[in-house]
This record gives sequence, C-alpha cells and structure tokens, in this order.
Amino acid sequence: MSRPPGRKQESHKISRELFVLTYGALVAQLCKDYEKDEDVNTCLDRMGYGIGVRLIDDFLARSAVRKCRSYSETAEVIAQVAFKMYLGVTPSVTCSSPAGNEFSLILDKNPLVDFVEELPAERASLCYCNLLCGVIRGALEMVHLAAEVTFLQDRLKGDAVTEIGITFLRKAEDRKHKRN
Amino acid sequence: MSRPPGRKQESHKISRELFVLTYGALVAQLCKDYEKDEDVNTCLDRMGYGIGVRLIDDFLARSAVRKCRSYSETAEVIAQVAFKMYLGVTPSVTCSSPAGNEFSLILDKNPLVDFVEELPAERASLCYCNLLCGVIRGALEMVHLAAEVTFLQDRLKGDAVTEIGITFLRKAEDRKHKRN
Repeated sequence: MSRPPGRKQESHKISRELFVLTYGALVAQLCKDYEKDEDVNTCLDRMGYGIGVRLIDDFLARSAVRKCRSYSETAEVIAQVAFKMYLGVTPSVTCSSPAGNEFSLILDKNPLVDFVEELPAERASLCYCNLLCGVIRGALEMVHLAAEVTFLQDRLKGDAVTEIGITFLRKAEDRKHKRN
Repeated sequence: MSRPPGRKQESHKISRELFVLTYGALVAQLCKDYEKDEDVNTCLDRMGYGIGVRLIDDFLARSAVRKCRSYSETAEVIAQVAFKMYLGVTPSVTCSSPAGNEFSLILDKNPLVDFVEELPAERASLCYCNLLCGVIRGALEMVHLAAEVTFLQDRLKGDAVTEIGITFLRKAEDRKHKRN
C-alpha cells in the first residue's frame, strides 16, 4: 500500500495537557505497583531510557541540529532545542564543574507537574519526573555519549527550582585522546 | 508567592512523539500488571476517565466552544476541536443510528500508535488506545452527557480504519423532555 497522502503536512504538535495527565496516570500506576519510591524511580528511569533510545531519531530528523563539538554545546541543545520541542519549555543551563563535564538544566517551571499539587507524605522520595532523566540518558547514549542524569532539586519537594544534573562520563572522549 | 510572569505566553504545544512513547510505556506496564487483555482495557478506560474529568476544564477554557445544541454538534466538536487540540488529528464523524444518538469518529491514522507495529499475538484483545475512550467518556460526563465510548474498529487489529463509537445515553435529555 502506498503511503497515505498528507503524511508530511500532518501536525506534530499537540496540546501538552493530555500528555501531562497521562504521565500522571503512569506514575500513579507505578506507585500502586511498587511500594518503595526507589523502585518507582528506577522504573521511571528505565522506561525513559527506552523512550530516549527511540526518540533520538525523531529528534535528529526534525531538529536538524549538527553534531555538537562540546559537552557544553550538547547541554545547550538539550535545553534549547529538545526541551522546547518536546515539552514546550526552555531550561537555563549552567556548568557546575571545573572539569566542564557537569551541567544543570534549571526549570523555573516544570510542565510535567502542571496538575500535581504536592507529593503525598508517604511518597517523599519519589522523583516524579524521573522519566525525563532516563529519556536524556537514553538519547545521549545513542549519540555515543555516556551520562548520568538525575534530579538535583525539585520544586515538588519544596526546592526553589527544578534542577536536572547531567554528568558526561567522558569515556568515548578519553579513549580518543589516548589514541591521539 | 505571586504567580511567575510569562505564564500566559508559555507554549501549550509540544511535540507528539514523547507523548506517544510515554503512552506506549504506560500500556506496556499495564500489560505486565494484568494478564488478561480485558483487565488492561478496563484499567486504560478508567485512567482515561479520570483524565477526561480533569481535562474538560482546560478544553473549555482554551477552545472557547459554546454549549452544543445537539449530539451531532457535540460529536463534531470532539472531532474537530478536541482531537485537533490534544492529538493533532481530525477524525471524520458519521452518525450511525436513526435515533441520532450514535456516532463514529473515524481515524485514517491514529497518532497514538505511531511507534507500534502490531499487537503481539498473545495480546489480540487489547484495545491499545482505550485510554481515549475513557477520556471522552469522562469529559462528556462533566458536561452532563452520559455516553458509552468504545473502539469499533482498530487498524492495529487489521481493520481498514480506526473507529471510536460514541453512544449518547440520552438520560439528561429524556428527563428534561418528561418535565416539559
């Protein structure tokens, strides 16, 4: 069967609210499934990883970004292109290590928690948006960048901002330097 | 604390792919949780209902649609405004009963299954997108319209199109007629 006409003109844009509520349903289901917050966090990260691994192709195709020449540039692309495209927000980026491999994405407002007022007391260790960390980690791995991605601050836990820390693990680069 | 500035200018639009993949992760998790397809379907419908109940406020606020005067108009609004807004597609609508209370939303392409090739053989009875039925049902209930919403055809199951059936249950209207 031939590809249906109009496929290319189709809008890739949707309204965020259905996504945010669906994500909430996912987290609620995992909280039913797992008693420990740590297990929910791990599961969200693992799910996100699987998503990131698949999402990267879509991202590279539609963003048309070129290969980044530094960790700093990579962090900026994640914030300014990927977050904007997939979540409609643009975090600010800070570099938090002299070695230049640790970055923070700072969100004044986290769109994923639009409908969440606060975490229930018995879920104080839940990283509600941990899926995002997994998505970033998975997507980076597909462009041969190993990274640790974790929440460093979370407004849902009373912090002033939401902060996602990305630590590039330098493996690929180190090997290249050794070869040179 | 005062509301942060810029809230209104914020984009409500996001790219669909992250949503589609997250939805896939949700369905996969439910398939782990429940052995029977029927239980997964029920759970998706129930989750969707909870989402629809909350989403309706957002929809009414942002769409600025006026009160519908007929079931037919309601079905058209769901297809042309709500689907467009939340999923970026516009199903066609057909009325399938002489009584005028049964409608079909026909999707040539279902954006929620973008990354799904086919259902595994052991999940032949899964209504993969059943969340949508629940969302419609929940949202309609909040505007005092009782309805049954189910998948009648599904491209994932080899049908030519995906068809969502909406049967308005006429309760509110019937009572009004009796009063008159």
